[in-house]
Amino acid sequence: MLDVIANHRTIRQYLTKEIPCDVLNELLLAATRASTVGTMQLYSIVVTTDAQIKEQLSPLHFNQPMVTQAPAVVTFCADVARFEQWCRLRDANADYQNMVWYLNSATDALLASQNFACEAENQGLGICYLGTTLYNAQEISEVLELPRGVIPVMALTVGYPDMEKYPPLTHRLPLEAVVHHQKYQPYSDQKIEELWHEIENSDQTKELLVQNNLPNLAQIFTERRYKSSDNHFFSQKYLDTLKAQGFL
Amino acid sequence: MLDVIANHRTIRQYLTKEIPCDVLNELLLAATRASTVGTMQLYSIVVTTDAQIKEQLSPLHFNQPMVTQAPAVVTFCADVARFEQWCRLRDANADYQNMVWYLNSATDALLASQNFACEAENQGLGICYLGTTLYNAQEISEVLELPRGVIPVMALTVGYPDMEKYPPLTHRLPLEAVVHHQKYQPYSDQKIEELWHEIENSDQTKELLVQNNLPNLAQIFTERRYKSSDNHFFSQKYLDTLKAQGFL
Repeated sequence: MLDVIANHRTIRQYLTKEIPCDVLNELLLAATRASTVGTMQLYSIVVTTDAQIKEQLSPLHFNQPMVTQAPAVVTFCADVARFEQWCRLRDANADYQNMVWYLNSATDALLASQNFACEAENQGLGICYLGTTLYNAQEISEVLELPRGVIPVMALTVGYPDMEKYPPLTHRLPLEAVVHHQKYQPYSDQKIEELWHEIENSDQTKELLVQNNLPNLAQIFTERRYKSSDNHFFSQKYLDTLKAQGFL
Repeated sequence: MLDVIANHRTIRQYLTKEIPCDVLNELLLAATRASTVGTMQLYSIVVTTDAQIKEQLSPLHFNQPMVTQAPAVVTFCADVARFEQWCRLRDANADYQNMVWYLNSATDALLASQNFACEAENQGLGICYLGTTLYNAQEISEVLELPRGVIPVMALTVGYPDMEKYPPLTHRLPLEAVVHHQKYQPYSDQKIEELWHEIENSDQTKELLVQNNLPNLAQIFTERRYKSSDNHFFSQKYLDTLKAQGFL
């Protein structure tokens, strides 16, 4: 397996060392080599290294310290606006501000981001994906001055990892948990018990249960990390942002 | 740059050679090493090699010949159902069938798919992403028997490339077309003209214009490939599928 895939870690602690221009360009070029619907490249990549703008982004990413600490925050946006501008110049009736083209362009952006991540690791850098991008997409759009037809899909921090704080590989479910042959095979409750057995009985989980004063790992997800009320709040918020940016 | 990234081509012509189990497993393991929201792995990967099921999928992918010709069709699905089943067994109030968790799980699925694609190429295989997956997600869900909480996000064909029909690298816009520094920089019309100059003046484009009897490349996109009426039809269709599968 490719080393960069087998050894991928999320890096949250960076050296202060900046990313040389030619290295950054190589990551960006790698991003653009990903597959893209109709070779249309319906994404924009905003590279933010300016300390003041990173400070503005920081609360939108829940003040996670790597946003200001990493040398760059890279925001991958679905972008049909640039393509539509070209079409208007050619008297072509562009009509891509809708749901299916949001999904096509978001797909473009995410495949590009994963190429960027792999190439970053190939160049000795590390990355941390920021899931918060979806939660505050509207405010991020305002900070980055995104026009209609453009919306943030994912962001990541990138920089040289502080190897003294290099994290271990994170746990994955056994392959049979996520792979289905021919068609989807429903899970028996017994199978679910087996698949989660290892992670539920790890030392890390036992520590989390004590810290959170909860009886099991599942409740740490549903009561602490990703609560019902938040899920509905952020769902409506992203739908509103899709409307505001022209996609719904 | 990683060879697999620099040399990525979409492969539409495959040898009849099957993919050995251990090779396929390596690609699937690579997929699972991608970043995943909260280490929750909210995706399922359906590997279809059965000729009859591939025949059923074929019209849903607009009868593109590689769907039946490639040894495997791999469908990457957003899947919150498995995680919710585990939560129910732990008296945890799972509530992930909504928009933001559709997006989180779709992101998981797409990052996994790109790792799969890179590792496939690392093992001498080739892939072709099937954008049609979004257009007929409901029918694909029926063929693959996806339960509520699971929805197709992307599929690809994978197999050994027919090297006699190995395609050239496809065109990309210059890097400055998709990269913005600090914040989004609006495009002047002059800049748009410059960015598209190379592709609009290529021999390939000139050939397309004659074939399509249209005055420019933009109109090939808007009048032939991705028309306004189709965009609205497929947008509504995917929204309906999101509802049917529980996410809206």
